[in-house]
Amino acid sequence: MPKFPDFAERVDMITGSVFEKFLPKMRQQGENLVRLHIGDTYLPPTYELPLRADFTEAHPLYNRYCNTFGVYELRKTLADKVREDNRLPVTWENIMMTCGATNALSVSMMGLVNPGEEVLILTPAWPFFFGMVRIAGGVGVEVPVYIRLYEQPDMNVADYLSQFITSRTVALYVNTPNNPSGKVLQREHLEQIVQVARQHRLWIISDEAYDGMTYDQREHISIAAIGDAYEQTISIFTFSKVYMFAGLRLGYVAADEKVLANINKMIVHQLYSPSTLAQYMMIEPVKTRHQWGGEFIRHCHELRDLFTKNLKLKHFTPEGAYYLFFSIKDYLRGRDYWQAIDDCLDSGVSVAPGKDFGKDFHDYIRICFAGEPPERLAIAVERLNRIFG
Amino acid sequence: MPKFPDFAERVDMITGSVFEKFLPKMRQQGENLVRLHIGDTYLPPTYELPLRADFTEAHPLYNRYCNTFGVYELRKTLADKVREDNRLPVTWENIMMTCGATNALSVSMMGLVNPGEEVLILTPAWPFFFGMVRIAGGVGVEVPVYIRLYEQPDMNVADYLSQFITSRTVALYVNTPNNPSGKVLQREHLEQIVQVARQHRLWIISDEAYDGMTYDQREHISIAAIGDAYEQTISIFTFSKVYMFAGLRLGYVAADEKVLANINKMIVHQLYSPSTLAQYMMIEPVKTRHQWGGEFIRHCHELRDLFTKNLKLKHFTPEGAYYLFFSIKDYLRGRDYWQAIDDCLDSGVSVAPGKDFGKDFHDYIRICFAGEPPERLAIAVERLNRIFG
Repeated sequence: MPKFPDFAERVDMITGSVFEKFLPKMRQQGENLVRLHIGDTYLPPTYELPLRADFTEAHPLYNRYCNTFGVYELRKTLADKVREDNRLPVTWENIMMTCGATNALSVSMMGLVNPGEEVLILTPAWPFFFGMVRIAGGVGVEVPVYIRLYEQPDMNVADYLSQFITSRTVALYVNTPNNPSGKVLQREHLEQIVQVARQHRLWIISDEAYDGMTYDQREHISIAAIGDAYEQTISIFTFSKVYMFAGLRLGYVAADEKVLANINKMIVHQLYSPSTLAQYMMIEPVKTRHQWGGEFIRHCHELRDLFTKNLKLKHFTPEGAYYLFFSIKDYLRGRDYWQAIDDCLDSGVSVAPGKDFGKDFHDYIRICFAGEPPERLAIAVERLNRIFG
Repeated sequence: MPKFPDFAERVDMITGSVFEKFLPKMRQQGENLVRLHIGDTYLPPTYELPLRADFTEAHPLYNRYCNTFGVYELRKTLADKVREDNRLPVTWENIMMTCGATNALSVSMMGLVNPGEEVLILTPAWPFFFGMVRIAGGVGVEVPVYIRLYEQPDMNVADYLSQFITSRTVALYVNTPNNPSGKVLQREHLEQIVQVARQHRLWIISDEAYDGMTYDQREHISIAAIGDAYEQTISIFTFSKVYMFAGLRLGYVAADEKVLANINKMIVHQLYSPSTLAQYMMIEPVKTRHQWGGEFIRHCHELRDLFTKNLKLKHFTPEGAYYLFFSIKDYLRGRDYWQAIDDCLDSGVSVAPGKDFGKDFHDYIRICFAGEPPERLAIAVERLNRIFG
């Protein structure tokens, strides 16, 4: 009975962010600390926001509630984008605005998963997703795929995934380009995943937060564009990464109308709708994305090269997104993992602990190579080499 | 097993908005329709947004992720406001930003209620709250208080509430000024509610969306300011009503630090944080609220008078908020309720059906008197008089 001063049980299922316990040490380091643990950019957005008085004249409804599915003009513009860039068979009615990709993932779990049901989570995976499955009452089943694909590009993902399916499996979470591994799934792997999902009637939750952020001419392929996958896929996008507007908390979902109608019920009970103001602000950048969108991606490409070429540690070169995820197992040799994280902080580099990304990654660390300018990144590489090299 | 194409059971617990089925008829009416069913304002915000290029220079982090509890400067400013206006013993660490009051109510239920536990809902109440309790697995127990308080201002609320308490009751939802009845709870009633909550160790969810919006020199009293109520109360505020910025989707919670830490776990799993941009935009209006804040409230007061003085239907004069909630029982006399709603639409007035606000109000309707300009409101009153008079 969670009467005052107790809370609901689901609160105890969620452990707070691991970053928190390092905050005092991080503060202590101050300006010296090169912050590689957060997934954000150090640059102002390439696209300049139309912060002019005539914005409110052009969009006089910016301060009002909007349709809970989103502002029509933005949905229409995004439908064009999703058809052209992601090759999904959508109209504006298949687009729903959300409060970031986070919100889209949250309502997908709330809308699809009953207590006790299982969700396959391809790992390493974005840490908050594990908690979302638990809050919905579900059980996350971790399938360590992405690192394995670097090691064995020819592996059959369908065979591998099938081993984890039970009668309780209802959905599958796939994220390409992948945070944290940087893996970009190729067509044959996506086809294998779709094959499993079709066979077992699993919902596919496609987290495409890093939509378009790929390197070395790799293509980002939306899984819903493969065969008949669209009807059972929730494709999730955001303005926080390539658009560099994390602070606007805006994302969107592309899916069948019936899916949107059902997950919208969850959205209205979590936050009613995302920001009307933010939605009006994002119409123009979507329309003009081909003019400015490549600039930040090219810069991330340079940052990736700077980092990976100088890092004297075994690692796989990220194919997309802006992270590097590598094992420090050889370095540890019995030493305490948390001591290593602490050593990084003492040397002036903050990193994200691997175990947040899945149970198989307790000896990994993740760094973000887009959150600090090149000269600071160079310092960080040097420091990491000194610790682990 | 909600495999594709099925959804989770909690989706079926939520019936869609009742407004939806009236949409075709509303569209048909077009410009002729005076829209009284939505709780929003027809005016631009009294406080003018600083949409200038120097905004981004002054707040260069506007596009980045922020602390999940919110931007420090806004939390600090709001703590001053909550201490001064609401008399709560808070510092900036007791303030957490949310994506509107909706989000604050949602995470309160997720953080406090286990499946099967009961939440007392003082009714008539804001429709989405019922669904939030259900989504958390809880059971809403409706306690029809506000209309009763118009009828019997001397009633003892403690005695009345106590009848609805069981061993499963964990929380109590109170909303003053009340949407939809316009009731503003007086100190003695709040004291009686606190007495019950203290005795039974109930969490108090205090929805103060209409904070400050009272008429005839009535005072808005925050329940957490009564006796020792603060420690077991979640006080919830928004920028959507008096501030007129519903489109920014920003609200805030004032509560004990431990409470915030726990409900923040739910926020990060629903949306990570509310908009950084919106938070920077709201610092100045909070600081200057006494200069501009009264203007809209005075106008609402005028609109209330225009509406209530001309309405030839028995009703209680709203003491706060911007709604009128009245019974059409005498008019119905066996006629179908939904036919009456339809008659309103045919006459060019949209109203919100009473049953959305609680099971005891199936013969009520709610109108909002702030969503249309005075001349249109006058037309609406005339039409309502013709139908129901």
